[in-house]
Amino acid sequence: MKQKIYVVGIGPGAPKMMTPQARQALEESDVIAGYPVYLKLLGDLVQNKKTIATPMTREEERCRLCFEEAKKGCIASIVCSGDSGVYGMASLMYDLLPEYPGCELEIIPGITAAVSGAAVLGAPIGHDFCVISLSDRLTPWEIIEKRLSAAADGDFCIAIYNPSSKGRPDYLKRACEILLRKVCPERMCGYVRNIGREGTEYKICTLEQLKDEQVDMFTTVFIGNSQSHVVKGKLVTGRNYHINTHMQKEN
Amino acid sequence: MKQKIYVVGIGPGAPKMMTPQARQALEESDVIAGYPVYLKLLGDLVQNKKTIATPMTREEERCRLCFEEAKKGCIASIVCSGDSGVYGMASLMYDLLPEYPGCELEIIPGITAAVSGAAVLGAPIGHDFCVISLSDRLTPWEIIEKRLSAAADGDFCIAIYNPSSKGRPDYLKRACEILLRKVCPERMCGYVRNIGREGTEYKICTLEQLKDEQVDMFTTVFIGNSQSHVVKGKLVTGRNYHINTHMQKEN
Repeated sequence: MKQKIYVVGIGPGAPKMMTPQARQALEESDVIAGYPVYLKLLGDLVQNKKTIATPMTREEERCRLCFEEAKKGCIASIVCSGDSGVYGMASLMYDLLPEYPGCELEIIPGITAAVSGAAVLGAPIGHDFCVISLSDRLTPWEIIEKRLSAAADGDFCIAIYNPSSKGRPDYLKRACEILLRKVCPERMCGYVRNIGREGTEYKICTLEQLKDEQVDMFTTVFIGNSQSHVVKGKLVTGRNYHINTHMQKEN
Repeated sequence: MKQKIYVVGIGPGAPKMMTPQARQALEESDVIAGYPVYLKLLGDLVQNKKTIATPMTREEERCRLCFEEAKKGCIASIVCSGDSGVYGMASLMYDLLPEYPGCELEIIPGITAAVSGAAVLGAPIGHDFCVISLSDRLTPWEIIEKRLSAAADGDFCIAIYNPSSKGRPDYLKRACEILLRKVCPERMCGYVRNIGREGTEYKICTLEQLKDEQVDMFTTVFIGNSQSHVVKGKLVTGRNYHINTHMQKEN
């Protein structure tokens, strides 16, 4: 008896950015679970299938419902926007797996916002980079602050997920202020809104300017490293690492 | 006259992991440039097309040949394994773009090894993470060392690209030794070889064990954060961040 669950990264939203592997997993599935907005993005792929939608803060419930469906002997998928591992459901599904010993998990990767957003902005993460979420729902703010600070120490490019939400409108400003303790205000940055969906928009600006930008939860923010520069309106971080005067000035 | 160049991330290699957007770009192209191994991975997609293959260390030449082809008024693609931005050709193409003013670039993202490798290992990058290349061909080793150290300070999960090559067989060992100054030897790690290609293999081990593992250039290595643990033989880093005794012991 099959008791299989795919944990599927569907990419940013556009069907052209979902891998054939992800599409096939969804087509094979009898049941598809996900945050309501993501199920809507799937369009035809969820038609004539049982769907399980639970709101944003009820991920564990969604995961358990998915296991319960699989236990009945069917194939279930739980979908995540972007990748299934990066802040996705893969880790929670593994942590629950021992409670459902007959079930088997398969993780299907997807295009995460760090790479899809970077493609819109140019090439901001062409060298070593960090991905940091500013959401303190599951992570203490001190840890987030420590990571931002360490990322600046390491001269990493940074992709920031969940830069803001209604409940925490000033988090990006706070993050920029932490970075500005170690990084010059002219550091090149950028952000992208609605990646791979209708109304994609982006902006390139300095770290100083970024501090006062208004962004929402559908935005991914990029902080350049000391080598990042603008070419024809795009944010570029080269693969060559020059220890130049700019770098020396900053560190 | 079209003078369009797609910079295409083809994913790890398996056709099922290449996005429809990437496939379409290649289908539209008159000319496809790439490292010979990647062109071979494309199979039918390069048939009946002009191809430009230059070896690993001649990326600039490959990029320039691609621009020269586009200048003739055709559509060209330059392919990168994984993503086109992450250590890919996107940044170099932008840096050369001002020399070819009639040309237009479009960056097509792909599944990078951090996410495809993570899917094989379980869910190692379920929380904030860094991507670091150990190749010192274009980056001074001191910078790499500084980044490893900063990543440990920030308690990031780390995905390590280019962990080894014939010319630098001991780089992963050196990286582990740097991390071991700040991270306990029992820290859970893993690595994946030949992601999305024939003969995919992986191993989970501690940081102390990883130090003496032999890996090659087709391997991606993952270092867990203080919360990473093993569930049913898979490496998992949860989305919840518990400040637990394990964490306190280490920091």
